Amino acid sequence: MPSKRPARTRLCRHTADAIYVRGQDLVNELIGKVTFTEMLFLDIMGCLPSAAERSIVDAVLVTLIEHGLAPSAVATRMVYASAPEALQGAVAAGLAGAGSNVLGTIENAAALLRKITTDPAGVQAAAQREVESYRAQGRFVPGFGHPHHRPDDPRSPRLLAFAEAQGVPGNHIAALRVLAEVVDRAYGKHLTINATGAVAALLCEIDIPTEIARGFGVIARAAGLVAHVREEQQEPSMWEMLRAVEAAVPYEAPDTAT
Amino acid sequence: MPSKRPARTRLCRHTADAIYVRGQDLVNELIGKVTFTEMLFLDIMGCLPSAAERSIVDAVLVTLIEHGLAPSAVATRMVYASAPEALQGAVAAGLAGAGSNVLGTIENAAALLRKITTDPAGVQAAAQREVESYRAQGRFVPGFGHPHHRPDDPRSPRLLAFAEAQGVPGNHIAALRVLAEVVDRAYGKHLTINATGAVAALLCEIDIPTEIARGFGVIARAAGLVAHVREEQQEPSMWEMLRAVEAAVPYEAPDTAT
Amino acid sequence: MPSKRPARTRLCRHTADAIYVRGQDLVNELIGKVTFTEMLFLDIMGCLPSAAERSIVDAVLVTLIEHGLAPSAVATRMVYASAPEALQGAVAAGLAGAGSNVLGTIENAAALLRKITTDPAGVQAAAQREVESYRAQGRFVPGFGHPHHRPDDPRSPRLLAFAEAQGVPGNHIAALRVLAEVVDRAYGKHLTINATGAVAALLCEIDIPTEIARGFGVIARAAGLVAHVREEQQEPSMWEMLRAVEAAVPYEAPDTAT
Amino acid sequence: MPSKRPARTRLCRHTADAIYVRGQDLVNELIGKVTFTEMLFLDIMGCLPSAAERSIVDAVLVTLIEHGLAPSAVATRMVYASAPEALQGAVAAGLAGAGSNVLGTIENAAALLRKITTDPAGVQAAAQREVESYRAQGRFVPGFGHPHHRPDDPRSPRLLAFAEAQGVPGNHIAALRVLAEVVDRAYGKHLTINATGAVAALLCEIDIPTEIARGFGVIARAAGLVAHVREEQQEPSMWEMLRAVEAAVPYEAPDTAT
Repeated sequence: MPSKRPARTRLCRHTADAIYVRGQDLVNELIGKVTFTEMLFLDIMGCLPSAAERSIVDAVLVTLIEHGLAPSAVATRMVYASAPEALQGAVAAGLAGAGSNVLGTIENAAALLRKITTDPAGVQAAAQREVESYRAQGRFVPGFGHPHHRPDDPRSPRLLAFAEAQGVPGNHIAALRVLAEVVDRAYGKHLTINATGAVAALLCEIDIPTEIARGFGVIARAAGLVAHVREEQQEPSMWEMLRAVEAAVPYEAPDTAT
Repeated sequence: MPSKRPARTRLCRHTADAIYVRGQDLVNELIGKVTFTEMLFLDIMGCLPSAAERSIVDAVLVTLIEHGLAPSAVATRMVYASAPEALQGAVAAGLAGAGSNVLGTIENAAALLRKITTDPAGVQAAAQREVESYRAQGRFVPGFGHPHHRPDDPRSPRLLAFAEAQGVPGNHIAALRVLAEVVDRAYGKHLTINATGAVAALLCEIDIPTEIARGFGVIARAAGLVAHVREEQQEPSMWEMLRAVEAAVPYEAPDTAT
Repeated sequence: MPSKRPARTRLCRHTADAIYVRGQDLVNELIGKVTFTEMLFLDIMGCLPSAAERSIVDAVLVTLIEHGLAPSAVATRMVYASAPEALQGAVAAGLAGAGSNVLGTIENAAALLRKITTDPAGVQAAAQREVESYRAQGRFVPGFGHPHHRPDDPRSPRLLAFAEAQGVPGNHIAALRVLAEVVDRAYGKHLTINATGAVAALLCEIDIPTEIARGFGVIARAAGLVAHVREEQQEPSMWEMLRAVEAAVPYEAPDTAT
Repeated sequence: MPSKRPARTRLCRHTADAIYVRGQDLVNELIGKVTFTEMLFLDIMGCLPSAAERSIVDAVLVTLIEHGLAPSAVATRMVYASAPEALQGAVAAGLAGAGSNVLGTIENAAALLRKITTDPAGVQAAAQREVESYRAQGRFVPGFGHPHHRPDDPRSPRLLAFAEAQGVPGNHIAALRVLAEVVDRAYGKHLTINATGAVAALLCEIDIPTEIARGFGVIARAAGLVAHVREEQQEPSMWEMLRAVEAAVPYEAPDTAT
């Protein structure tokens, strides 16, 4: 399991009077000169983003930050109210919920788009084969459908058009649109490209690896969960949430259990 | 414990074809139009930042994102290598370490600066009284001193000068400088204003409440921990870290325990 | 900050064919010979418990394991439903909520009992002074009062009587009873000794240090949260909880915010 | 996604003067009468364990609690030293690491044993087919092999013999032994049944469902991580660990990166 040559880190170096992040001088080249989005791109990807990359990462993070009283936000508020000594623990608790049923879909959609765009059979044939495979297994195609936003998720066309306006290559966006047509035909009804699918296409367009794609969602959610902590500080809601939960999930005596 | 009128949330509302965050239309007013920094400010504080506020929050987040193999990064890498199925859990684990001994200092420094700047006795007298109180208790004054960056933390003058160039009121920065003189005299040696102290002053200048100040550090660290996950994916280091830890903290038979 | 001599660990040693925990042979002396409670006491405290210590730790853990749809359980269920790939992350999320407003009270009550029992002024005088101090600050005395269990928390007399039957010294239990009389007089009404107060007294009786007392609550809650994951697997409730939460905490447009 | 009839909970009910866990009276039937192991079995599985079930769960938890400076323990110590205000957050951080590369193997081994024991082709044929499939994919068979314990993991024979002495049906243990012979033949060398494999067999023998098997590991590790917090309180090691990590994973300038 250990790698052959010793592992090294390239993220950060500090001397008595300087700090370098990914080789760039924090004090003289970064603070006051780059945005947080540029900085996080540098830290994760190893180089500063182009203007298009920065705009697209901003659009992705702006899209993913806030979802109201989503499961992760409820978890954060529950934990914050019980352990206010550790704001970071409350955010961490909610973040643990940014998992396969939420941000995992970005990964799955990105993997699907990459598979289709590189298939020797061509995008159309690959899309048909993949959609058929999902349908045969009774699974949703990642990146499609939304419980609330019907008939269409309003974020998706905006994200795709914005990325195109930045001059990205466009092949993953094109593949997503082919996929959308195939999905509608195969399922016999319209299923919207959801925000997750659009985000996946955008991350593919700027060459964010699939295996770290979820990380961008994690960053956005961390910020959103801080906002939920702030609202819980200003207007505590935990007790009302808890009473509502208790009423919604009543106790049933074990002897009547199936 | 429950509040008198029902708790409400003002963060997010969604209809079938629109999403509003803090009352602003996500699709038409935010995506592609604001940076992530502007968006997180909106979500946490309830309004979009001014240009000065945005620049200062960017500078703060850029400063706090990356610290190399710090305790939280080591925790994230340990957890990621053991539970790669849940990238978000690894980030959450490291984030739980962004606590009182790390980000808590921002809070303490911010509270101290606010106390001094609003003291009827004046900044100078209040600074002397507070520093004396810390010294009498054998405690460090929050925001001062650094184990590596001697004689001076290079980030602090940069952050303070940058904020001043943005046209902030400047009273908390001024108070920090008064405090610095008092600290040096009281301790009989030079203790640098550290990055935490400078960050606290900047957050005070743009009216970020003390109780949510730690949240900005949490957001920055979340991004930095994603970068550590990425590096661990590309160059796994966990096993070498673990062997080093085992060698550094040897086993000692219990019967010889003190 | 670093300690003078190198840090060492005394918890565990393994060779090719043996494992020792706190110096005891795991395979030949522990597996199949000690209960989990004895084992965790050994691991945390460094020696196997006496029969009385084991019984009391069992009673404490049995008392603290399950509290129904408490905030930590809701957090665990929210996270599990969103990130089912990582059961451990869901338990960790809920555990992060076992904080100062919940298990912290055990620590505070234990510290108070230790202060009173060792006060040169005697238990009675010390109890009066401490209660007066809490009352003057408008704070609850840790270990007293309960929102649901009125007039008395049924767990407390059971726990105290059980510990006494094990032959503990009894001075912390006695101090708790003195405190209870003082509390009732000072507040002019009956406030029950709650389970947290009784647990604190039991842990003091068997010399569990105050600073690790919360750890026993953490262990018990970890087990309880696994039970909540199990119930969520068998009977998913997250969506109903979420709808109830959304109804209980309605959206309010930001412009009407105070 | 919502279930048809309203979700219910059967874990806990409380009245003003009583608490029931899984229908049993906490005060009169459980506190002082059952061990923590019996209680957690009741809470998770819905009924108290038989004597054999209790002994086997004890043996499993005793086996899994402590592994020295394992990744999860290092994470817990890092987080505790940085955020000592929240002991629970440090345990939660380590627990997040009890993932697929650690406890996940219990699940995989349990699933494999269940598949083999119920295969119409018989245990021997099923074992050969499954092992061949793992080998063809270049994967380890879950439950076999250990980096330190060679040639044999000493815990496994002890666990299997202990369970047999409790009078379990024995079919999963038998299947594990068949599997062991097949593994050795297929790989052309001896691979030990490791503790994870033995634990999986024991949990199968007492009908613990595969999907909650990891939960027992989580409970054991929570207790072990509390022991690591305790040792970190008594003998702080974080700074020495951190220096060792920094030395083991040196910085490399980004321009030399591959």
